[in-house]
Amino acid sequence: MSNKKQIRIGLIGTGLMGRIHTNGYKRLSDFFPEYEYVPVLQACCSRRKEKAQAFADQWGYKSVETDWRELLKRDDIDAVDICTPNDTHAEIAIAAAEAGKMILCEKPLARTVEEAKGMVEAVEKAGVKNTVWYNYRRVPAVTLAKKIVASGKLGKIFHYRANFLQDWTISPDLPQGGDALWRLDADAAGSGVTGDLLAHCVDTAMWINGGIKDVSAMTETFIKERVHQGTGEKKEVTIDDACVFHCHFDNGSLGLFEATRYARGHKALYTFEINGEHASIRWDLHDLTRLEYFDHDDEGEVRGWRSIHVTDGDHPYMDRWWIPGTSIGYEHSFIHQVADFFHSLETGEACHPTFRDAFETQKVCEAVLDSAKSRAWKDTGVDWIEKV
Amino acid sequence: MSNKKQIRIGLIGTGLMGRIHTNGYKRLSDFFPEYEYVPVLQACCSRRKEKAQAFADQWGYKSVETDWRELLKRDDIDAVDICTPNDTHAEIAIAAAEAGKMILCEKPLARTVEEAKGMVEAVEKAGVKNTVWYNYRRVPAVTLAKKIVASGKLGKIFHYRANFLQDWTISPDLPQGGDALWRLDADAAGSGVTGDLLAHCVDTAMWINGGIKDVSAMTETFIKERVHQGTGEKKEVTIDDACVFHCHFDNGSLGLFEATRYARGHKALYTFEINGEHASIRWDLHDLTRLEYFDHDDEGEVRGWRSIHVTDGDHPYMDRWWIPGTSIGYEHSFIHQVADFFHSLETGEACHPTFRDAFETQKVCEAVLDSAKSRAWKDTGVDWIEKV
Amino acid sequence: MSNKKQIRIGLIGTGLMGRIHTNGYKRLSDFFPEYEYVPVLQACCSRRKEKAQAFADQWGYKSVETDWRELLKRDDIDAVDICTPNDTHAEIAIAAAEAGKMILCEKPLARTVEEAKGMVEAVEKAGVKNTVWYNYRRVPAVTLAKKIVASGKLGKIFHYRANFLQDWTISPDLPQGGDALWRLDADAAGSGVTGDLLAHCVDTAMWINGGIKDVSAMTETFIKERVHQGTGEKKEVTIDDACVFHCHFDNGSLGLFEATRYARGHKALYTFEINGEHASIRWDLHDLTRLEYFDHDDEGEVRGWRSIHVTDGDHPYMDRWWIPGTSIGYEHSFIHQVADFFHSLETGEACHPTFRDAFETQKVCEAVLDSAKSRAWKDTGVDWIEKV
Amino acid sequence: MSNKKQIRIGLIGTGLMGRIHTNGYKRLSDFFPEYEYVPVLQACCSRRKEKAQAFADQWGYKSVETDWRELLKRDDIDAVDICTPNDTHAEIAIAAAEAGKMILCEKPLARTVEEAKGMVEAVEKAGVKNTVWYNYRRVPAVTLAKKIVASGKLGKIFHYRANFLQDWTISPDLPQGGDALWRLDADAAGSGVTGDLLAHCVDTAMWINGGIKDVSAMTETFIKERVHQGTGEKKEVTIDDACVFHCHFDNGSLGLFEATRYARGHKALYTFEINGEHASIRWDLHDLTRLEYFDHDDEGEVRGWRSIHVTDGDHPYMDRWWIPGTSIGYEHSFIHQVADFFHSLETGEACHPTFRDAFETQKVCEAVLDSAKSRAWKDTGVDWIEKV
Repeated sequence: MSNKKQIRIGLIGTGLMGRIHTNGYKRLSDFFPEYEYVPVLQACCSRRKEKAQAFADQWGYKSVETDWRELLKRDDIDAVDICTPNDTHAEIAIAAAEAGKMILCEKPLARTVEEAKGMVEAVEKAGVKNTVWYNYRRVPAVTLAKKIVASGKLGKIFHYRANFLQDWTISPDLPQGGDALWRLDADAAGSGVTGDLLAHCVDTAMWINGGIKDVSAMTETFIKERVHQGTGEKKEVTIDDACVFHCHFDNGSLGLFEATRYARGHKALYTFEINGEHASIRWDLHDLTRLEYFDHDDEGEVRGWRSIHVTDGDHPYMDRWWIPGTSIGYEHSFIHQVADFFHSLETGEACHPTFRDAFETQKVCEAVLDSAKSRAWKDTGVDWIEKV
Repeated sequence: MSNKKQIRIGLIGTGLMGRIHTNGYKRLSDFFPEYEYVPVLQACCSRRKEKAQAFADQWGYKSVETDWRELLKRDDIDAVDICTPNDTHAEIAIAAAEAGKMILCEKPLARTVEEAKGMVEAVEKAGVKNTVWYNYRRVPAVTLAKKIVASGKLGKIFHYRANFLQDWTISPDLPQGGDALWRLDADAAGSGVTGDLLAHCVDTAMWINGGIKDVSAMTETFIKERVHQGTGEKKEVTIDDACVFHCHFDNGSLGLFEATRYARGHKALYTFEINGEHASIRWDLHDLTRLEYFDHDDEGEVRGWRSIHVTDGDHPYMDRWWIPGTSIGYEHSFIHQVADFFHSLETGEACHPTFRDAFETQKVCEAVLDSAKSRAWKDTGVDWIEKV
Repeated sequence: MSNKKQIRIGLIGTGLMGRIHTNGYKRLSDFFPEYEYVPVLQACCSRRKEKAQAFADQWGYKSVETDWRELLKRDDIDAVDICTPNDTHAEIAIAAAEAGKMILCEKPLARTVEEAKGMVEAVEKAGVKNTVWYNYRRVPAVTLAKKIVASGKLGKIFHYRANFLQDWTISPDLPQGGDALWRLDADAAGSGVTGDLLAHCVDTAMWINGGIKDVSAMTETFIKERVHQGTGEKKEVTIDDACVFHCHFDNGSLGLFEATRYARGHKALYTFEINGEHASIRWDLHDLTRLEYFDHDDEGEVRGWRSIHVTDGDHPYMDRWWIPGTSIGYEHSFIHQVADFFHSLETGEACHPTFRDAFETQKVCEAVLDSAKSRAWKDTGVDWIEKV
Repeated sequence: MSNKKQIRIGLIGTGLMGRIHTNGYKRLSDFFPEYEYVPVLQACCSRRKEKAQAFADQWGYKSVETDWRELLKRDDIDAVDICTPNDTHAEIAIAAAEAGKMILCEKPLARTVEEAKGMVEAVEKAGVKNTVWYNYRRVPAVTLAKKIVASGKLGKIFHYRANFLQDWTISPDLPQGGDALWRLDADAAGSGVTGDLLAHCVDTAMWINGGIKDVSAMTETFIKERVHQGTGEKKEVTIDDACVFHCHFDNGSLGLFEATRYARGHKALYTFEINGEHASIRWDLHDLTRLEYFDHDDEGEVRGWRSIHVTDGDHPYMDRWWIPGTSIGYEHSFIHQVADFFHSLETGEACHPTFRDAFETQKVCEAVLDSAKSRAWKDTGVDWIEKV
């Protein structure tokens, strides 16, 4: 292992995403042992010292910081992983780029297109490696979906529909804001389900089906006021609790998207379905191991939706894991993203989605929010050029 | 059986719907033997004499007509069943009302709100019994869904989503028009999937969840030209091949609807899902015997979506059929509608959906088409007052 | 219709099976209009006059009898349909054969091999048309399964497994015997789940996969005593509440069968699965419209179990019904059996399963019960020669 | 981390199980950080030096051995993990016990009851901690099933059925023996699917439903000869390719078990279902995140099988992982077993299944093979005393 090239990671933010990214770094050399580059858990950063130290102790980070600015000053940090609330992404990422660090930024890239633009400019100007954690691309069944569509098996695409349904904010007693619930505070999050959930759907959609041209949207805030954990006072809820939009893709297909946190019975049901001339595909996160596939070219009498258990050695990423029939889980999508990021250091290629790719997703999200507000169609201005 | 009151049926149109309605009439006394009124298959009407006669021979109609006007003149016809293409509904129904006949009209009620309005006025002025064949209300699982929502089990409703997905018009070689394919000809059908498929979704939705207030829609015609069977010439396709819309219900919930004939792999997949504060429901036509139900009040550790096999004696309509675990099919929804129509003759109550109910559905469909055309939100003007 | 040849039916027994067979007769000419022969509902027979008359009134039988012997004497009866409890099958069928009547006998053929043997001899000696109502063969998805296996698509068969799970007798308060519960009384039924449920599984299995050679079985009676409805006294329960057996088929494949009325949550879950060298099939009665099919020859990456919605015009029997995507139900399997019976009158071929076919099934059932009792393997003596 | 107590692991065998156990050790402190004991990857052992070294390099073992006897002599090894083929378990385990090492032994415990008996005696005489890797107990949905049954929710149990279906040995061209295919060589494996697959089913079954009293079995070897990788010669196949058995549990319920490697379409489909008086449960490995649960006490009209997505914080083990709705995978069952083993070092309790528990499972497997051979029922002699 001595001749591996070490990439020293500085992790900023030690919540759920901090944990799951770290798990990704720690698994890399076990499962991708031939890769040239390896991560080193150099430092983790959290505003509260005890929290940072506890995290470092648990996960094996060598040192801690309580101010991300200090982290960026350190020479022994090669790459920064941004896992903080959305309102901090732009400032940290721009500073990190200026400090010449590689950047792995949690999604959504930013709260606004304006913020995102600055971030893209910064990383491109600095020429630093960058990627955004739209992890679902690396669920093997989703990667397989992309591969099938790219192969032309579906023919002309007519429909793309996706939704992301949750139910964890239905209680009016749930507060907003603070460490745990910043996702309910528009100041910190930028938006509600649009940035949190739809952004995932949009990233996958454009990756598989190309750019989204224009959108017509509707949002709703079901619970109008919640206690803010910062002040203890009731405060207007300004996030979108639910958002739906329909759209045109550049390739002429129609899109239909929905996200909500008020769909009782669905914990985190991200699903998509793609209907093409010859074949169709669908997937859902609750049964992430399976991909449903319908091929009209199958002999008529025995034609039906196939339920593919994506656990064979020839399925994407699955040669790294166990035996056919045995599932991997949610966390593995992050491990795969770590692997692809480190592999891209060898090849010199971009690790998609880059900041620029995520910037295009940001445009769609902003157009969606604008459309909902103005009750009018909006062009997205997306210029989707990602080649994978 | 001699003291049963006979309702002599005149059937106009002998296609698929003519067959399935007739099957409904013929099953009534076998399965609802205590009902006071019984149908008599008095006459069937089709423009071509041989076709009419063959239909009468097969199904047992006592006589035939080739001109519906002649049928309406007959004193031995009590009720008229309209199964002809949509462009004839208004004229026939209005004449039938004026002739004092009861009317059972295939859906959609008409091509336009304007046509529908005249029909409602005619039946209400004449005071004749009327109903529209939105049959899905009488699938036992759907009726059960209505009952569950009406019981309050779901609490406040947040979301209603429905789609109706088909794939039978994907081939560009399929012609339009004529007896078989009038649904692809906007002149005959009024619209494409909006009137054919979404109308069903809208009827069920308003029945269960109340009025739809405003809509924002998008339509698409994927195949721009098709040979017309009437002329043998290529002609522009003017129907909507696909239509999606989102909307607000009067009760504050959000609606999301989609219909298409370009969803490869789906033959006739009508689905709906309703998310409420406490519980959720979903159903699909391909597995019409099942209702999925999630109750958040279930004990946490063993909480999950329940798959209800709606075949018990205490399920709607199922005391009429076989034993628990044994399914009935699509045609039974029509049998149930016949039964409810005949039962309503005893009680004197309306048999929903009436022309007036269907008129409200028509308003939504027209608002949807208007919205798609103008790329703007449209108020529906729906005044949903149906009490069931 | 006047030149159709009429077959005058005498129905003996007016319970569930009497109803569903009658429904089959009544629908024949609507859905199989070109068939030369048609049934006429000539007489129905039940021991209690009022019951017989009510049934005749509801379903349209022209006359009633209270003694089946009288029915058999009538010249105006061409075919006898035996829907009475199992203990009467042999006596009625033998007498009917001697009277020269065609016979349609409810399954199981008899209580014992001995009884069944006499019945086969009687019909073969008399040369009368005969069939047994193992209706599941005519569920379209099951017929399709048979067709797929017969085509050789599965290659060499390794495994056949089937079960029939119910849960309606779990309560110890349920009595045995009488009109409604004769299935719990071994005197009337011959056996419990073996004759009632496993007989269905065995019929389908041998039809699709050939003869069963030897069996090793286990039975259980969970509730040891139940009040008998005849006497009002507690009486030992002598039926098998549950039965499992494994076996060898003549073709070298292994069989595994189970039936029970104590599988909480399953109303009437008849399932089978067949594993072959190249492909596999499975089906279940609760979702009877679907056939699951796995073809190993599919391209590896997109290989999976296909869920075939057996509702297309080229699926067995489905050209008679509605449109793709719309289901038929349990009762249709009986309609199809009526159709095939009447069609066989035209062709002169046997209508399988005949008494002789059902006799072979009886041998398996008896070997199963013998094996369970003796705790030893038993040869079945089956000589499966049915060609379909 | 300095005050953690270190358990130095010596791993013997570096195949699939060696990898997945090691992965378990490496994740312990990340996800169970408060545990007092931690594993240290002290040495791994494989007959070929290069293989051992490559494994050590990849996974981080500090040293390597090529002879397990040498490993056992080392003072710096506290616990031995046996992942070698079954024919070596007894010798290694007995020696390890004599050397005073804790033992974690891959399942099945041994090839025969005789071997297993010696192993149990050795560990009990030496008083060393011991456990067997029947990992499926620690799939959260399976643990939940155990908990539900233990709670009494099912009431009296009537049926337990399980199967383990695979399809990877259908090709006659597959050889037997050698490193990769020792499972097809009875000398190395002891038996075929009985020890490999049914042993899992039996372990889970007795854990949840108590002892198995007697069995009646059937086995089959479909491919009679295969090339042996050791000699390159064709050799008789002496393993069981398929095995089914039925049985009685001590609690009066009936059991039905099947395992095969010839069920085309099933990669590793381990399923079980338990039917009780009040409720039923079922689970399958291909969708391991879900537990199906039917509760007859649910209100009749909305009663149905619940599909529980076992990913909430109050589900077994799930407080250690991510967020509701996000799955974990197959490997996590091993991580949980590592965690429970290390936790048991704190509590001083046994970590089930112990060698003694696995010995009881061995008795069932041997009785099954004996029964199949002799075509007769066999008592198992199981004395199931495990208290969990």
